[in-house]
Amino acid sequence: MAAVYIAGVGMTKFGKSSQTLAELFCEAAISALSSSPIQEVDALYIGVMNPEEFTGDSNIASQIADALGVTGLPALRVETASSAGAAALHAAFQAVASGYYQNVLVLGGEKMTHLSTSAATRILAEVIDKQERQCGATMPALAAMITERYRKKYRLSHSRLEHILCQVAMKNHLNGSRNPYAQFQQPITERSYFASKFVSTPLRLYDCSPITDGAAAVILTAEKTDAVISGIGQGTGPLNLRERDSFTSFRATQIAAARAYEMAGLSPKEIDFAEVHDAFTPFEIICTEDLGFFPPGKGGNAVEEGKTSLNGLLPINPSGGLKSRGHPVGASGVAQVVEVVWGLRRSSGTKLKREARRALAQSTGGLGTNNFVTIVERTDSPVVKGLWKPSSPAPVHRHPSPKQPRPLTVSEEGRIETFTILYVTPDGFLPPLALALVRDRQGSLVMAQGEDISHLKIGREVYLRHLGDRYLFTVKSHLTKVREALKKLLRSIPPLPSKGKGPSKKETP
Amino acid sequence: MAAVYIAGVGMTKFGKSSQTLAELFCEAAISALSSSPIQEVDALYIGVMNPEEFTGDSNIASQIADALGVTGLPALRVETASSAGAAALHAAFQAVASGYYQNVLVLGGEKMTHLSTSAATRILAEVIDKQERQCGATMPALAAMITERYRKKYRLSHSRLEHILCQVAMKNHLNGSRNPYAQFQQPITERSYFASKFVSTPLRLYDCSPITDGAAAVILTAEKTDAVISGIGQGTGPLNLRERDSFTSFRATQIAAARAYEMAGLSPKEIDFAEVHDAFTPFEIICTEDLGFFPPGKGGNAVEEGKTSLNGLLPINPSGGLKSRGHPVGASGVAQVVEVVWGLRRSSGTKLKREARRALAQSTGGLGTNNFVTIVERTDSPVVKGLWKPSSPAPVHRHPSPKQPRPLTVSEEGRIETFTILYVTPDGFLPPLALALVRDRQGSLVMAQGEDISHLKIGREVYLRHLGDRYLFTVKSHLTKVREALKKLLRSIPPLPSKGKGPSKKETP
Repeated sequence: MAAVYIAGVGMTKFGKSSQTLAELFCEAAISALSSSPIQEVDALYIGVMNPEEFTGDSNIASQIADALGVTGLPALRVETASSAGAAALHAAFQAVASGYYQNVLVLGGEKMTHLSTSAATRILAEVIDKQERQCGATMPALAAMITERYRKKYRLSHSRLEHILCQVAMKNHLNGSRNPYAQFQQPITERSYFASKFVSTPLRLYDCSPITDGAAAVILTAEKTDAVISGIGQGTGPLNLRERDSFTSFRATQIAAARAYEMAGLSPKEIDFAEVHDAFTPFEIICTEDLGFFPPGKGGNAVEEGKTSLNGLLPINPSGGLKSRGHPVGASGVAQVVEVVWGLRRSSGTKLKREARRALAQSTGGLGTNNFVTIVERTDSPVVKGLWKPSSPAPVHRHPSPKQPRPLTVSEEGRIETFTILYVTPDGFLPPLALALVRDRQGSLVMAQGEDISHLKIGREVYLRHLGDRYLFTVKSHLTKVREALKKLLRSIPPLPSKGKGPSKKETP
Repeated sequence: MAAVYIAGVGMTKFGKSSQTLAELFCEAAISALSSSPIQEVDALYIGVMNPEEFTGDSNIASQIADALGVTGLPALRVETASSAGAAALHAAFQAVASGYYQNVLVLGGEKMTHLSTSAATRILAEVIDKQERQCGATMPALAAMITERYRKKYRLSHSRLEHILCQVAMKNHLNGSRNPYAQFQQPITERSYFASKFVSTPLRLYDCSPITDGAAAVILTAEKTDAVISGIGQGTGPLNLRERDSFTSFRATQIAAARAYEMAGLSPKEIDFAEVHDAFTPFEIICTEDLGFFPPGKGGNAVEEGKTSLNGLLPINPSGGLKSRGHPVGASGVAQVVEVVWGLRRSSGTKLKREARRALAQSTGGLGTNNFVTIVERTDSPVVKGLWKPSSPAPVHRHPSPKQPRPLTVSEEGRIETFTILYVTPDGFLPPLALALVRDRQGSLVMAQGEDISHLKIGREVYLRHLGDRYLFTVKSHLTKVREALKKLLRSIPPLPSKGKGPSKKETP
């Protein structure tokens, strides 16, 4: 496999833009070319999540080749939901590594802010499993359910969890305030964090990345430059929550990271800084654990101790991350690599305090269903190899054998595995909306909508019923339980000998 | 670059299916695995054009990994409009050629028949340039305009053109009638061809490929098998008609073919048979010319002489092509390669009469805007190299430099470059609808909608006017011309000396 180097990188300012999607791509391309020794490319690889529905643009690859004045040149669009930019980079890496192309321009972008929040949320929610969507689940709702489960698993108090999430938000906004390309350029205070409204408990507005326009560009080349992609990996995970073996980590990241570390011959310890997919603040914590930077359940401590801040041992999201730089979905995976390269080059764009030799970018598609890890090293770094000890995520089944579709039928009672109260609901659902992942008596998991928002707690018993295309749950209250116990008691008392007139009596001879 | 071989190939029956998109993909995958020595794959590369709008499926790559029971495995979606399947194969080729993956499952599919024809046509039309769409242009309309231009350029009479197109349709339906996977399994007669209604003059219903459900699968591997991809290439072309240097050929195909032939070291003469993108019958003719099988303008003769029929020297579309096998857009590019491999293997699927060693598949995205050429050879073929003499399509500009957007302003008069009368119109347009590509006095081209459908002819003079977001044209009739000539004459007569009272007279001292 030929080595793949990075020449020019660049991006647009992220935020609300009056430019069209094509214009954003062009601006990012010019920005990358302006710092590139390579000015001619053999092909375009374009990452964009859903231009069909966001802006009504189809056939986007040909359209961008046209707009860039390179009609004739091969141009491909690659898509893996919100990691589409990383996916385009991944495919372009293989194109250059194969020797088929010498120089490739990778673009990532999305145009979203012209839509209402509810319209954008609806399109973003299409990446979610249908059964979950039918209950009213959105991306923030599922992220919130994962967060609540994480809190429970690692025995964090509500206030401790809030403190951790607040620290992530404050760190990333502080970093973003130093980034001229970021959507939000103001630090936030603890006070403003706690003043921000709940989107889906326990996640507040300040835990969620914004809706953004923007594009980013990276030129990959077979010619040696000062930065090389030394490791790259991809992994997928189940679309729905109910089929996951863990609710507190993303296996897709673990698989992608294992491949990237193995290829680079590096262990997580050798990474000097990282850009990770903090679409929600808890995802930054989980991600730093999945990447092996911190042990499971300890990502929160690291942020509290300042290890991941700009001056820390392992800066995470020096750019401000998706949280503060913004999240034009198709652009984010490419923008992370732009930031990584700026950091390694100590170019004007970087916010890093110390010199860095090896950095990592991690991108997430959907609810952790299609993730990428890319490791970039300075080519003047001393070779550090053989440090990678596979901790091996569970082996992946590689023989395609379609799953038999089985109807989702669940018993009438179960227990809450995790839950949230959603305050920003999709069309057709009134807030506040309680959602829970319920494990029924047979051990099956199902997403269900609460008939009431009170008494929610992990482990609590619920009744389940089926209504049209969704499941509804009701928490068994203390009173319900007393009533049930009484009923049971009543049933256990033998009936008194009958004294009234009965047909049996009549017929006794 | 490592050699890339083909192991198993397979496909679903094409047509109207009650299966979901995921089920179609699974069936195609099983079909490919059933004939494959390789049963385990490292990744999935999925070509699908627009599941977001056709079926409401987003995050399709993760969804298919789930459905195939290989969650965890990397899965990418690749898209280039109607050549998405070929694009996925292209990206997968690079992934295996690089050594990054050993075995990759390539899938192409689309689910379309559950929608009304008008809804499906609307989604398909989104690949067209916006200005052209605003006039009511659809894919058949643009294909028809290209056909009319072709007829004029090569001086074919209307009846000669009709005869050629009918021969293509009859040949492909005859081939399809022998193909158990084809959507249409009945040969058609000349009579039924001429009885079929015009969709967009000169194209009839029997000149257009149908709306179809289906999926196809190919397993690529670095392990030597009996078939190797010896050449592969991609090219793009302008999105709109007005920026093309030719209306009678597709530069995107020529660029893709040049790369593929060069890589394989083969000339068009060495190709034994080919599957080409006959979404419209005239496109098969143009394609066989762009691929260098026949000189420009001579593709029609070839089909009339039977050269491209199953018994001919160079069978084209032995499967029945898109015309008769059907055209589930994302599937077609993969299905072509499945057919090519069946033909080379002389497996039960093939309809070929003679042994073949080298075959070619050509796929078209949009209106010839993103095209692919793939050459597959039997590995037991004697090496034939160095036969490729580059006829070189015009060189491609490789330095991205965004085009300055300039407002489309045209003068008030012009001439028809090509035209059609559209009988199956998109929503908001009443049939019959006249459309013409008009060259104005300054030499600019513009798509315009006719105020009338009579007197249309290439070269005819028209008036142009701007109305909202579209241009309208009116043919200058004989009467108009006489009136104009009279006006001019009138203007040329010097005014008679004034006799009445005028201010000038009054003020003369």
